Amino acid sequence: MQAVVLLSGGLDSTTVLGIALQEGFEVHALSFNYGQRHRVELERAADIAKAAGVREHRIVRVDLTQFGGSALTAGFPVPKGGLPAEGEIPITYVPARNTVFLALALAYAETVGARDIFLGVNALDYSGYPDCRPEYLQAFERMANLATRVGVESKEPWFRLHAPLMHLTKADIVRKAASLGLDLSRTVSCYDPGPAGEPCGQCDSCRLRTKGFAEAGIEDPAAARSETSQRSARSSALRSERSK
Amino acid sequence: MQAVVLLSGGLDSTTVLGIALQEGFEVHALSFNYGQRHRVELERAADIAKAAGVREHRIVRVDLTQFGGSALTAGFPVPKGGLPAEGEIPITYVPARNTVFLALALAYAETVGARDIFLGVNALDYSGYPDCRPEYLQAFERMANLATRVGVESKEPWFRLHAPLMHLTKADIVRKAASLGLDLSRTVSCYDPGPAGEPCGQCDSCRLRTKGFAEAGIEDPAAARSETSQRSARSSALRSERSK
Repeated sequence: MQAVVLLSGGLDSTTVLGIALQEGFEVHALSFNYGQRHRVELERAADIAKAAGVREHRIVRVDLTQFGGSALTAGFPVPKGGLPAEGEIPITYVPARNTVFLALALAYAETVGARDIFLGVNALDYSGYPDCRPEYLQAFERMANLATRVGVESKEPWFRLHAPLMHLTKADIVRKAASLGLDLSRTVSCYDPGPAGEPCGQCDSCRLRTKGFAEAGIEDPAAARSETSQRSARSSALRSERSK
Repeated sequence: MQAVVLLSGGLDSTTVLGIALQEGFEVHALSFNYGQRHRVELERAADIAKAAGVREHRIVRVDLTQFGGSALTAGFPVPKGGLPAEGEIPITYVPARNTVFLALALAYAETVGARDIFLGVNALDYSGYPDCRPEYLQAFERMANLATRVGVESKEPWFRLHAPLMHLTKADIVRKAASLGLDLSRTVSCYDPGPAGEPCGQCDSCRLRTKGFAEAGIEDPAAARSETSQRSARSSALRSERSK
């Protein structure tokens, strides 16, 4: 059975990819080049998809920078002062982003004959994003079944959205990924990473990730990797300083 | 009041643009470069938007060719043998196209503070497309109000889709456009036009347009224009033939 998995290259979507594969789906992974400032995630997504053995991975270009309105795409800084208050919508919110992504996933699913679409949204850690809530996903599913040839021709509701992380904490997600034996060393969660994908450690997404690994009592292989590369960068800087 | 109008550069969307302007909206027109074979419509859309006096016109690139699945984007020919049977979904159907377009219109609307989104779908002449039906649009509207910051923060349903052509015949649309005094000479409806926008005269869209103008008893200014340019092309071919 075919499934489409939205894959950003982060911890969550990589875990979802692992879940879809474990459930026996042949996976068509889908990533977006939407003008995000953290474009290194696209390279990582490609690595992760390949290593996981997906049937196909596509990167679709859709230019959300045209609409501005978010710190993830526009010219204003990613907030690094701490997590937003409960119920507050963070300025990293991209207008209608999940709707645009799911619409493209729907087009892909209909084309490859997939009925199931997986995505890594989460209602606990990202309670501020309206398009990460179960009622939103149900409304999308209903619309999708009215929108498509296959949805109309089928006698029962056709498309199924799967959000297996919806009610998990970040620590639960880390444990789930570990239990699936996933290699998380290539995942990048940071909203504002360095050119090689080094996490800033300060943005909301870094804070959530750090907290999740700590609570799960598991070391973050990507942080370890990044520390190693930072240490090696520091020591080579030191060597070049000394040689002056 | 701001509105987003989906503008393809065809007869229908140009008429919808005229309706939105007549209703007093400041219009943000939105067109898509989605890999359509009839890309001349983007130039025409830009001309039409400018002539109509919209506040802004954006062309967003979204690569639907990645998904194939339609004669409008993929490498198989546009059917020219006559209109499809009633209830049949034509092969010019692009998977989830209106959902992708409306999702992007929603992102645009939220960004510019527009509550109203206009589109030229029609349930009569295009009964074969599932994403042109009222029940689809209602489901999209409901989803949109759950998807967005403004939808969630508003106490009443926020976004409103307007499909003023939904129940009109093509002849009604032609009459409506004429009554609004719209210049239709730049509109292009053809699925497979020549490089300068000359209609093929054979595809479903050309057939519907020709029939609509004929039933309305109005001459199609784009056809007249195209005949003039074809006549001038033929006579210059003849001249160059004679001069050999």
